Amino acid sequence: MQTLTVELGDRSYPIYIGTGLLKRPELFTPFIHGNSTIVVSNKTVAPLYLKTVQENLTAYKNSDVALPDGENFKTLEVLNQIFTGMLENHCDRRTTLLALGGGVVGDMGGFAAASYQRGINFIQVPTTLLSMVDSSVGGKTGVNHAMGKNMIGAFYQPQCVIIDTETLSTLSDRELSAGLAEVIKYGLIRDPEFLVWLQENMTKLMARDPEALAYAIYQSCQHKADLVAADERETGQRALLNLGHTFGHAIETEMGYGNWLHGEAVAAGTVMAAELSQKMGWLSEADVELVKSLFILAKLPVEPPPEVSPQAFMKHMKRDKKVQDGVMNLILLRKIGEAVTSNDYDPQALDAVLERV
Amino acid sequence: MQTLTVELGDRSYPIYIGTGLLKRPELFTPFIHGNSTIVVSNKTVAPLYLKTVQENLTAYKNSDVALPDGENFKTLEVLNQIFTGMLENHCDRRTTLLALGGGVVGDMGGFAAASYQRGINFIQVPTTLLSMVDSSVGGKTGVNHAMGKNMIGAFYQPQCVIIDTETLSTLSDRELSAGLAEVIKYGLIRDPEFLVWLQENMTKLMARDPEALAYAIYQSCQHKADLVAADERETGQRALLNLGHTFGHAIETEMGYGNWLHGEAVAAGTVMAAELSQKMGWLSEADVELVKSLFILAKLPVEPPPEVSPQAFMKHMKRDKKVQDGVMNLILLRKIGEAVTSNDYDPQALDAVLERV
Repeated sequence: MQTLTVELGDRSYPIYIGTGLLKRPELFTPFIHGNSTIVVSNKTVAPLYLKTVQENLTAYKNSDVALPDGENFKTLEVLNQIFTGMLENHCDRRTTLLALGGGVVGDMGGFAAASYQRGINFIQVPTTLLSMVDSSVGGKTGVNHAMGKNMIGAFYQPQCVIIDTETLSTLSDRELSAGLAEVIKYGLIRDPEFLVWLQENMTKLMARDPEALAYAIYQSCQHKADLVAADERETGQRALLNLGHTFGHAIETEMGYGNWLHGEAVAAGTVMAAELSQKMGWLSEADVELVKSLFILAKLPVEPPPEVSPQAFMKHMKRDKKVQDGVMNLILLRKIGEAVTSNDYDPQALDAVLERV
Repeated sequence: MQTLTVELGDRSYPIYIGTGLLKRPELFTPFIHGNSTIVVSNKTVAPLYLKTVQENLTAYKNSDVALPDGENFKTLEVLNQIFTGMLENHCDRRTTLLALGGGVVGDMGGFAAASYQRGINFIQVPTTLLSMVDSSVGGKTGVNHAMGKNMIGAFYQPQCVIIDTETLSTLSDRELSAGLAEVIKYGLIRDPEFLVWLQENMTKLMARDPEALAYAIYQSCQHKADLVAADERETGQRALLNLGHTFGHAIETEMGYGNWLHGEAVAAGTVMAAELSQKMGWLSEADVELVKSLFILAKLPVEPPPEVSPQAFMKHMKRDKKVQDGVMNLILLRKIGEAVTSNDYDPQALDAVLERV
């Protein structure tokens, strides 16, 4: 097992990464301070792993809620189902919530923990590659609004993150690819060496080679932990993690949540960000091809869907969370391995990228 | 104008109390950092004061949302209407939200500010006595769940609180009385001298004597600010502010939100807490009569509604936010002017109080 720490003063917490961790109660119990727990998962994950996790919780009054599966259920309405379950089971301020599942479960479970009785403890137990390398670390929680992704939420840190890489064995190929989009992102924004490693090992990752996956997860969590520790509430460099996300969120919202997986939209969005970076004179054509080639190796899309018009892109992008005082900030690539936040891109170049289709 | 400060380190903020403050833009603008604002009010308050407030905001891109009026609209569903209004008006992370209205508007506006794009700045502009003396100060925000009051929310502090006592001129008599319940509470939990003053001046307060009201509001805000500064997240003495609230919330929830005003339920609940304190041997019969007499002077109920059975009380009280590890904590009176948190009350005495009706 490997351990990383997210350094946030008195809110610091560990990330445990390894195989078989779901069967190690000693990883869970130090972070449960009251006498009750509730496991939030979904209808897909619960049959696979709920029982295993519950076996660690026999010393507590334990209950569970299983949400419908999918990004389209990441709403205030479904969030209220968690609250109902918590009230029916008499969860109180000392209850610890465990979020067992992918990004949707982690984001909603985390926001439920942030909001239930104005805040209770929670533990992230991610079971998808995307949630292991990105969403379970750093305290971004929330739900979608029909008009924009992740528009409602809280910064709220877990007590710990427990990553059992064995759970990846039940992940679909499509979900595995989606997770790799965020892995590739870390290389693009701040680690050219990792990017070289990814080029050389993408075939192994796609074949679910345990060692390769463990290394990619560790590297990704390390990068995430560094950026979160430096800038918890995203007033500066944490925003670099949003490479491809402004374009990607527009795709997800316009196509209907869940039709494009988050990682798929991020892949296509990252290629768009790379293309705009090329038009700014920062990347070469070869650089853009390199970006595309990585996503292609991971069987991810490198073009947005033709259904999303330039007008639709602009409509959603103007509502992005990085808009400040009406000015749209984009994450672009100054070079391969170095991202920047920019609000002085050429608007005509942006138009040209959006009108590509 | 009088000024108080809620001392919370880098999250400290002022409370301004005076007449005509809604017409003083210089009180608002130092707390608006971006170039846009949104005023959240309700259908009752908006026709009275929205225009006055908006005249302070002409330098900003301003929008507004008016909610339906009443505690029964303090739900996640209506909260989503605020988010929709904010997205339609392109509010971003630099937008400042102004909550103009009573406790429901302040609690919902505050929670919307806490959650929109994971947190934006907000200003409390309370227009009811109850919100001036209690809910606008201290950062408790949230909405109700069908199964329990204020079960969903956040601790999230405003940038400032602007109390224009002139707005009390349009308050109904019933709402004025409800606000006085929380004023009396401060005397009961920690200020016997203020309690004597209240006995002597209740007639003036009920007649809306401006000086008496200003004094009562200032004293109340001072007490609230002290307790919040000492214990922002209610791990200790802040809980004393909940005198009468565990019983009161049960009444509000069981009767249907809005049928009993919050202050009315708190008054009846405080009498029940006093009765239990008497059964513990802490208060005399004369003390209980004193408590009742104050509420009677303020035209507030001193008995719970007969519709709420002892079983219904217990059902709701077991879900109270002060329950910890399944143990119910109650705020009781050690003597007049001194409240304590207790979990070792006699359960039979509690039953006797609940079975009074």
